[in-house]
Order: sequence, then C-alpha cells, then structure tokens
Amino acid sequence: MTIGFEILAQDASARRGRIQTAHGTIETPAFMPVGTAGTVKAMRPEDVKASGADIILGNTYHLMLRPGAERVSKLGGLHKFMRWPGPILTDSGGFQVMSLSELRKIKEDGVRFRSHIDGSYHDLSPERSIEIQDLLDATITMAFDECTPYPAEHEVAAKSMQLSMRWARRSRDAFRQREGYGLFGIVQGSIYPDLRAESAENLKEIGFEGYAIGGLAVGEGQEQMFETLDFTTPHLPINRPRYLMGVGKPADIIGAVARGVDMFDCVLPTRSGRTGQAWTWNGPINLRNSRFKDDQTPLDERCNCPVCSKYDRAYLHHLTKAEEVLGLMLLTEHNLFHYQDLMRQIREAIVANSFSDFQATVSLRLEGKG
Amino acid sequence: MTIGFEILAQDASARRGRIQTAHGTIETPAFMPVGTAGTVKAMRPEDVKASGADIILGNTYHLMLRPGAERVSKLGGLHKFMRWPGPILTDSGGFQVMSLSELRKIKEDGVRFRSHIDGSYHDLSPERSIEIQDLLDATITMAFDECTPYPAEHEVAAKSMQLSMRWARRSRDAFRQREGYGLFGIVQGSIYPDLRAESAENLKEIGFEGYAIGGLAVGEGQEQMFETLDFTTPHLPINRPRYLMGVGKPADIIGAVARGVDMFDCVLPTRSGRTGQAWTWNGPINLRNSRFKDDQTPLDERCNCPVCSKYDRAYLHHLTKAEEVLGLMLLTEHNLFHYQDLMRQIREAIVANSFSDFQATVSLRLEGKG
Repeated sequence: MTIGFEILAQDASARRGRIQTAHGTIETPAFMPVGTAGTVKAMRPEDVKASGADIILGNTYHLMLRPGAERVSKLGGLHKFMRWPGPILTDSGGFQVMSLSELRKIKEDGVRFRSHIDGSYHDLSPERSIEIQDLLDATITMAFDECTPYPAEHEVAAKSMQLSMRWARRSRDAFRQREGYGLFGIVQGSIYPDLRAESAENLKEIGFEGYAIGGLAVGEGQEQMFETLDFTTPHLPINRPRYLMGVGKPADIIGAVARGVDMFDCVLPTRSGRTGQAWTWNGPINLRNSRFKDDQTPLDERCNCPVCSKYDRAYLHHLTKAEEVLGLMLLTEHNLFHYQDLMRQIREAIVANSFSDFQATVSLRLEGKG
Repeated sequence: MTIGFEILAQDASARRGRIQTAHGTIETPAFMPVGTAGTVKAMRPEDVKASGADIILGNTYHLMLRPGAERVSKLGGLHKFMRWPGPILTDSGGFQVMSLSELRKIKEDGVRFRSHIDGSYHDLSPERSIEIQDLLDATITMAFDECTPYPAEHEVAAKSMQLSMRWARRSRDAFRQREGYGLFGIVQGSIYPDLRAESAENLKEIGFEGYAIGGLAVGEGQEQMFETLDFTTPHLPINRPRYLMGVGKPADIIGAVARGVDMFDCVLPTRSGRTGQAWTWNGPINLRNSRFKDDQTPLDERCNCPVCSKYDRAYLHHLTKAEEVLGLMLLTEHNLFHYQDLMRQIREAIVANSFSDFQATVSLRLEGKG
C-alpha cells in the first residue's frame, strides 16, 4: 500500500511518528528543507543529509520551466538528477503560479501563466501538475489547489476552497498509485472554521495518503495561524500525516506540533542564511552586525554542527561583510542543522512526555525574548 | 634556519622539490589556490586541502582593508582566522595597489592609495607591507615591489626595476627572521634580458629564501613569457625555490616547469569556476553551453575528484544556467582538483624522467587542440 504512517508516541496533541516511503523513512515531526530548483541552495546533498534531514521539497513551478519535467524524467528523475536518493515532496506549482499575479489567469480547468524566466506561456491543471510530479518521480505528490489569498471575505474564501476541492478530486483521479508513493490533499478555507471543516470533510471523502493545511503563513500572524490549526486539525484523520505548508519560524513549528502537525517546510533557514542571519537557541542573530567582528565564540555555544565546531563569529562576520560565498554556505549549513536539531529535540520531548515543558522553556528563548 | 628546500629529482631544467616550513611541507612544482579575502572563494578549507593543495595565497591589500591586519593578528593570525593550518604565502599588496591606477601615488618611500571599499586613504611601504604580512603570520612573505606595467620602454622598465630593488633591500631589513618562515625577493625588468639579469644579481646579493619572477602574465603572451623565463631562470640560485607569480593556464604552468619554475598561483581555476568554466584533460568547457543539457557523463572522464565521481554535466549545466550557488561550488572544487592533479602528474613525470614526453602529449590537449 502507498506510504506507511505509524504514531510511535503522543503527548497531548503532539505526535511522534514515522512515515515509510519508497525512498526511505521520515521521522516526524519533520522539517523539509526547500530545494526549489533541484538544489537546496548553497548545500551539497550529502551535507543536507548530514544536517539530519530525511526529506526535501522540490518546486514543480521552477522545475517544469527549467530544466523541464520531461527532461528530468529522461535523466532518471529528480532523485538521480540532484543526487538526493531520499524522499522528495513536490508542491503542485499552484502556490507559485498564483503569486505571479500579473502573469496568470485562473479558470475552472486550470491556470495559464507566463514564465518569469522568458515570458513563455504555460498551462497548469490538476492533471498536468500530477503528471509533472510523476515525471519528477516525487515520493509525495501534492494535489493542485488555489492558495486563497489573505485576507479574503467568507464568500471569496468559500468559492476558492470549493474550486480547490474539485481540483483535489481531479488530482486524485490523475494520480498513478505506486507502492511507497503518496498523494496529499490540501485543506483550504482561510480563517473560517466552517470552511476549513467543509474542506477537510471533502478531502477525507476523496481519501488521501496525507493531509496538508494550506493558505496559512501568508500574513495572518502566529495567533491567527494557531487558532486556525486549533479548529482544523480535529477534522483530519488521526492515522495520516499532517503537513503545515510554508511554516515557519522555530516558535511557529513548536506551536503547530502542539496542535498535532507532523510535517513542515520553509525557506527561512536557507534564505536567511544568504542574508547573514543565523538561527540559534537564543534567537536569531545577524552576522553583519559589527559587534561580532572580534567575537571568537561560535555562532551558538549549544550547537554541535560542523560550522559551530570549527568557526567563530569573527570569521563569519568577515565573510558576511565581504559577501564571500563561503559565508552563505556556512550560515545555511548551520541554520539547516539548527532546524533539524529543533526537530530532534521536539521528537525526544514528545517521547519523554515533556513536550509542554519543552515548549514553555524554549519558545520564548528561540525568539530572542527568553 | 628559515625554510628548507631540497631538490628530489631533476629532468632537464624541470625540478621536483620539497619545501619545509613552520606550517608544513610543500611538494613542488606546486600550485597555490588564491584565497584573496581570507577564503579560497566558495571552498571550505578542508576541501581545498582534499584537492591536494599544500599551500594557499592570501592578499595583503584585501586583508589590510578588511578585516585589518591588526585584527587578524589579535584573532590569532590568518591560519587560525580562516582555519587553514597549512602554509600561506602572502603577496606584498604592491600588485593590487599599483592596479588602482586612478587611486594611488607612488613615491620613493612607498605608495599612498585609496580603498576600493570606502575610499579611505592608506599607505604601503616596504616596511609596512612586511609588518602587515608579519601580523597575518604569513609563512612566506613577499618583498614589496612595483609590478612594471606591460609594455614598458627599456628606460621606464629599468627605473621601475631599480626602485623595486631598493624596496627589496628595505623589505629584507624589515623582515623578522623566524624558524620555518621565509622572505622571497621578486625579479623585475619586463622583457629585457639585461634588466632581468641585473635584477636577479641584485636580489642574490641581498639574499632571499626564494626568488619570484614578477611582471609576467600581464598581457605579453605565452611566447614572450617563456622567452623571458629562458633568460631569467639561469640567473637564479639553483638551491632556492622559484615562483612565477600569477601564472596561469595549465599549458603555461607546464612550459614554466620545463624552464625551472617551482611555484605558481592563479585565480583562473577559482574565478572561471564562478563563470561556468571547467578545466578538463581535453581543454576547458563552458557548462552554460546548451549542448550539455542532456549529457549524463561527468565533467571529465579522467578525473577522480568528488564532483566527477558524483555529478553529471546535465545537472551542472542546469545549476550553472539557474545561477545556483551549488554550481559554482562544484565547478570550483573540480577546477582546483584538476590543477592539483596536473601538479601531481608533473611531479611524477619529472621523477620518472619523462617530463618532456608528458609536456608534448599533454600541453596541446589541455588547450583543447589535441
């Protein structure tokens, strides 16, 4: 059968689980580094693995434009192409296409859009999105949906969600079932409890190997996001993984795990590494700051990553100021390790039944307020 | 005594040697990757070492401006600062300062120039250059000189060379002698046999731990460069290392080894790696070229580097086209490995007394003409 999921331990609503796939095992709660264009930016795949990542995310939109899904397929699939043999989740392309506001047109059948690279026209529909993800050889395929903009009136959010539900059915019908592969549906409905409930029920009726929560982390703020999770996750099946798309800061992840979420992805650790920002157990710091220029301590005293074991802040400050490639390589590596370390500690706290203590002591500190 | 040098084998004029320093051994002929601003660009120091490099080069001009020589000293020296425990040769800053044509003024005492970073005024003299290199803890310090522009009339070249010779004496006087450290003088004199001879004799009289040949690879072309080496190296002491500054392409290096040169540095393998160019045993190729987009062979079938062992041209083409950081990381790594592989094969050929065969079969092929 498709992909396996077992819950190994539970602490209140927080779940410690394990997903079995054709490409390997994913320990949950899991954080997926983003590998937009066939590479987790500035990272060698073996170093992504060494940071503790079990699974990475690939972007359908970017890969369909360059190098092209048919080409990736001919070259042996995305795993082989980018030398990442482990599980890969691909998004449906929907989110990125929708954000090309001036360059796309949404109809019942799908979306026509223009490439940001060369202006050429392309079509995405549930059927084509699923086909592309199949060509990429995605371990986990995402249903094609419309990410409802925020804020949205109830009526607008309802229509958008209902379109996504019709597309979810078409995605399910188009998906080619294989052992160890799976298709995830995406709950929409903005911040409205009735719409989120309707969406979740709709998806359960269709049936998916996992359930994602979409349309969050789009500007609604942490409080609103947690509230939406509070009234959404109870509608999701207990025995299937739950994935909160595009989240987030460490404190967002901890709060979402407390609300029963199992999977996350976010560009934050990689993107902020390219702008001089490092995530530490005492909150984020920016290495461009001149207070670090003579600082011979590591980025984070509590971190065991290869960067903290070897380099000091004075050198990383220098590399960042001089805009040296090595600076962004090392900060990205540290940040990804920090995120995976967070997930390891979350998993351990759930197993030890001490997750609420962990949450209380760590969340504020991670935001630099502790 | 200073630094040791022994010649292990000789094949016609080509020498296979070994330099002993306070920071380790350098097998010659040696290629030194350039680590301008305290990093060999886009490379982790352990990967520079793994490529086969025994010694790297640091730039006095860049480091004095940022992070500052006094700061590097306070942080424990350049080796510790950049986590490269092996030998480091620093240039004198002269070459880079001279090329700031609009921003510098040369006098007998030294050079006043403006920083390319913030426009601030700085002074470099033989004494200050040697002091900076001492603060950086350079294993091999270069005498402060004027790199004579090319082309130069005989009279201009003579005056420039004689200034460099007075500065060489002052550099020698300013240098603090320590076990395992050394100071190299630099032969100038443009393309004029009498001036090169005068310069070499002058330097020998002062006495240095090694002798560099400067003012080449500045636009004179390979033939003129080889001719200048032909009439210059016979004037250099046999028992001291010879360093051809800023050279060069693989075929330039082979030709200079044939003329008795032991050490080289060049930005070519690192810089060209950042523009999509890969050096192979069949000449350079540019990965941006669309002919590579479906090419599942490695960069170079004859290369054993980590990049060629793992990745194919199709993926490297994709990374290069998408301007992904991983692309320049991998091309730089391959190029540095290729250069070190070239040096290994040169050393083996000298020991095997087959260097002229090696030169004949390899030189043309390396330029893509074989």
